[in-house]
Amino acid sequence: MLTVKEAAEFLRLHNNFELLTHDYPDGDTLGSAYALCLALRSLGKNARIITTGLPKNFGFLNEGVEEQSFEAETIVSVDVADEKLLGCNADKYRGRIDLCIDHHATNRVEAKNLLVDGSAAANCEIIYHIIQELGVEITRPIANAIYTGISTDTGCFKYSNTTPQTLRLAADIIEIGCDSAYINKLMFDTKSKAKLRLEKEIYENITYCADGRCAIIYTTLDMQAKLGVSSDELEGLASIPRQIEGVSVGITMREKEGGIFKVSVRTNSEVINAADFCAKFGGGGHREASGCTIKGSLEEARQTLIAAVEEAI
Amino acid sequence: MLTVKEAAEFLRLHNNFELLTHDYPDGDTLGSAYALCLALRSLGKNARIITTGLPKNFGFLNEGVEEQSFEAETIVSVDVADEKLLGCNADKYRGRIDLCIDHHATNRVEAKNLLVDGSAAANCEIIYHIIQELGVEITRPIANAIYTGISTDTGCFKYSNTTPQTLRLAADIIEIGCDSAYINKLMFDTKSKAKLRLEKEIYENITYCADGRCAIIYTTLDMQAKLGVSSDELEGLASIPRQIEGVSVGITMREKEGGIFKVSVRTNSEVINAADFCAKFGGGGHREASGCTIKGSLEEARQTLIAAVEEAI
Repeated sequence: MLTVKEAAEFLRLHNNFELLTHDYPDGDTLGSAYALCLALRSLGKNARIITTGLPKNFGFLNEGVEEQSFEAETIVSVDVADEKLLGCNADKYRGRIDLCIDHHATNRVEAKNLLVDGSAAANCEIIYHIIQELGVEITRPIANAIYTGISTDTGCFKYSNTTPQTLRLAADIIEIGCDSAYINKLMFDTKSKAKLRLEKEIYENITYCADGRCAIIYTTLDMQAKLGVSSDELEGLASIPRQIEGVSVGITMREKEGGIFKVSVRTNSEVINAADFCAKFGGGGHREASGCTIKGSLEEARQTLIAAVEEAI
Repeated sequence: MLTVKEAAEFLRLHNNFELLTHDYPDGDTLGSAYALCLALRSLGKNARIITTGLPKNFGFLNEGVEEQSFEAETIVSVDVADEKLLGCNADKYRGRIDLCIDHHATNRVEAKNLLVDGSAAANCEIIYHIIQELGVEITRPIANAIYTGISTDTGCFKYSNTTPQTLRLAADIIEIGCDSAYINKLMFDTKSKAKLRLEKEIYENITYCADGRCAIIYTTLDMQAKLGVSSDELEGLASIPRQIEGVSVGITMREKEGGIFKVSVRTNSEVINAADFCAKFGGGGHREASGCTIKGSLEEARQTLIAAVEEAI
């Protein structure tokens, strides 16, 4: 396991970087990649970001970041807990990762060098320390990328993973000059009218199980089409079911192309370890927030989850 | 205007305190009062809190805080921008306030001593500095009260009033040992099933005006009764309308007994100054978050607001 200093040294000694993000990219994997990419470029190195797509609301991260043409030499993954979470890029990069920087304690990436710190609320915390160690000036775009990762992975400092260190780091980043108010508005306080309609429909179709201690919500491709909701807008739904009074386990099912459901599990308490629960279905993540994928129809997938929850509780 | 040091000196020299909170008490006025009450008591002084009610979800602040019987000598208001915001206590205390501690730049309280700092995101920030100046140990209940005020007045560090100082102060408070995860869950991540039903109904009845730049939502006493929603549960609704894409002015109308509507105005932008807007109806507050009261039926009050918005935009 590398230290932050050693990871910085590794980056300093290499060039022509490809920075890998996880599938269904979120603010932390993208923020990590953009911050690191900009830092490496400011050292005169070549770096590009590999994603399976850039959701519309993260488009601001890409502003002013130009394409670079070079032959990749060094592969770095950020916020990727397992090679298979690279999605359609998994086959290409499996076994080729030179440095894995992650904050998932359950990390299973087989990389030549690993820097995994499960105590960091967001992977961007680790990236920030690496960039400081590199001696790179934290410009506004770098600060924005880091703030995006930290704020999204902590629910804007609301989740229990938020530490005094997280808050102080955010304070430093804001002081350096990041657009925190703009980013917060975009990430946490903007809803399209289509999304409002979707939430109304979700509220009408909540399934409770395990004596009301578990709530399950879902979206289907039909619902999305009918209400005009883009896939990007489905982010953030996972916090809905666990907010319901008396609910310890909140499950969100999102239908994807190909007859599969992407499942997010959020737990408030000691009742269920979300990472263990999702591992049964080949997924993983954190103790209180994890994910997996289940094949089948809505009804089949839902019954599978209900049975698993009732067994686990 | 007193400094923090002078306010602390004033408190040290006096005794038998009544701490006044504003009507429809929120986390910041209650957190300020509880933190200051506990700090004064730990100096061996008598202190009690005067409120127009303690909403259920703030009940934890009162745990272990015993009633004290004494003749009041010193009146201190916390987070009260105007005597009339004392509600049913206004007549009793008007002109009798010895020290007013507030963070509303628009403060109009006629107190013998004033400490108003409009740069503080929450009044609890000022209270924290006063308690430090008093040399009182920040116990867990004091830390919890301060954290409650800071987190609720910043939308858990989401609103644009959040400063690096706010985040560092929260970090210190968490380090001292406050139950931030518990408080965040209670304040920001708990919804009763009745409230879910209410939100569904609110989503069905949104009024847009000023070419979609303003959205108005409402609750009525009938809706509350039908859906089984308590008044306490109506807190937090005010953030809904301004979240809608394209909406710069979000207005929330809550029917109260006696044919009046309590109106909350939230603005995202330079389009309307919420404090000025509410001042037209005898209310006030901050530039981006203010309130007022309007008499009349739902339809009358709504039309009054639409006309005022369309004039102001």
